[in-house]
Amino acid sequence: MSALHSIQHRVTFGECDPAGIVFYPNIYGWFDRCFHDWLAGFGGHQALCRELGAVGMGLMGSEAAFRRPMRPNDRIEIAVTARDWGRKALVLEYTVTLDGAVTATGTETRGLFIPAGTGISAGDLAPLRARLGV
Amino acid sequence: MSALHSIQHRVTFGECDPAGIVFYPNIYGWFDRCFHDWLAGFGGHQALCRELGAVGMGLMGSEAAFRRPMRPNDRIEIAVTARDWGRKALVLEYTVTLDGAVTATGTETRGLFIPAGTGISAGDLAPLRARLGV
Amino acid sequence: MSALHSIQHRVTFGECDPAGIVFYPNIYGWFDRCFHDWLAGFGGHQALCRELGAVGMGLMGSEAAFRRPMRPNDRIEIAVTARDWGRKALVLEYTVTLDGAVTATGTETRGLFIPAGTGISAGDLAPLRARLGV
Amino acid sequence: MSALHSIQHRVTFGECDPAGIVFYPNIYGWFDRCFHDWLAGFGGHQALCRELGAVGMGLMGSEAAFRRPMRPNDRIEIAVTARDWGRKALVLEYTVTLDGAVTATGTETRGLFIPAGTGISAGDLAPLRARLGV
Repeated sequence: MSALHSIQHRVTFGECDPAGIVFYPNIYGWFDRCFHDWLAGFGGHQALCRELGAVGMGLMGSEAAFRRPMRPNDRIEIAVTARDWGRKALVLEYTVTLDGAVTATGTETRGLFIPAGTGISAGDLAPLRARLGV
Repeated sequence: MSALHSIQHRVTFGECDPAGIVFYPNIYGWFDRCFHDWLAGFGGHQALCRELGAVGMGLMGSEAAFRRPMRPNDRIEIAVTARDWGRKALVLEYTVTLDGAVTATGTETRGLFIPAGTGISAGDLAPLRARLGV
Repeated sequence: MSALHSIQHRVTFGECDPAGIVFYPNIYGWFDRCFHDWLAGFGGHQALCRELGAVGMGLMGSEAAFRRPMRPNDRIEIAVTARDWGRKALVLEYTVTLDGAVTATGTETRGLFIPAGTGISAGDLAPLRARLGV
Repeated sequence: MSALHSIQHRVTFGECDPAGIVFYPNIYGWFDRCFHDWLAGFGGHQALCRELGAVGMGLMGSEAAFRRPMRPNDRIEIAVTARDWGRKALVLEYTVTLDGAVTATGTETRGLFIPAGTGISAGDLAPLRARLGV
């Protein structure tokens, strides 16, 4: 499956912890960044949400496997594919590579959050999918 | 000058960098956290801004001096005082201590950001000062 | 199963994103913080690693489900239990609650990273388990 | 004065706060990232420190002025110049621009941290300056 989008990143000193390797929550931050960078090609998260009457394309869950440590100045690539478009949940799959070797993989499960009474509910994803053309 | 407010914090592993000490931008994050924790006693930043017609009590500038390194599990205290209430700029002063010894000091210069045309401008601070009773 | 350890936290403004809710990688940061705070009662991560000849109690994977949004100033609790002690992989389970309601759950799979040639390998967890008395 | 180095960055959703603008500690994070990216051209921070017998090129202080808000997807540039090479303190000056307009400026004061007894002291910067050829 070919990637929908990918970004390049050089691992920063500040993203690493006292063990000298990337502090793992930052890897999820890269997933999120790749997702938003993809949306930027369609006007961006905020404009798309306004268009679709949503408050956000928010997270229902995420998971990751960490295969190889990454260190300051490593030049990595983060690529995203759409694994599954459900009616109300989209599963995105991420792969992080360093010189072609996979260092981490993971998924994000996202919904289209719609205001509902005092809370929020997950809206139908069909309009988003059509808008993104995937 | 006695502190307006203070918070306790235990330095986390993830806040430290490959040198094993706190990554310095996180120290500014503690200043901001102490400020917002202070406002929480008055309903919080969001409620106060709504009340005063502001979009935020935002930053015009900040500075800090780092005196002693801080490491994972250090139990620190961050205290804030108001150094200067100008008409449109408030200077807050922060002191970080570990077992009574000062590890960092700094300031934040904040304004009351008011929507103005397509941009924002700094509003009069008198209503905020009255509301906070300082 | 009773918690091994728990921490209290007040959600900060800086942990939240433009949607006004916690930026999800920070939730993993709280898991990690709870884990390290637990180890602090046994001398801390660094001292334990030195004792056991390890470079870190690092991550092999993690996952989380996000059930309810959390906002600035929410007072939450993060609790950890040990779900499974394998020979080389420990699965920790986390629960985040706000006023007793679960807002997020998740796991971390950790290993004892031991230097091996030019890389690292996952060491036997028995000595760590004995040391922690669980 | 021409820049020693500069980096390009696209502001991420996760770097922004509930006011929809960059959470200011992240701006200091960009300064640090620009500095380390500059050092990468000379082998990187870790290799240079090893070469010079230092534990880090650490911070003594920093300050910044925030002139215009930055938002998700803004494509910015961060440039660094050396404002002053003292014997034991180097002052670096940073400028952040968006489409040519300055959004933030600031400085970092850094020293070469050398182990000294149980603490650290600031070492002579001449060898570092010679090594960097500035």
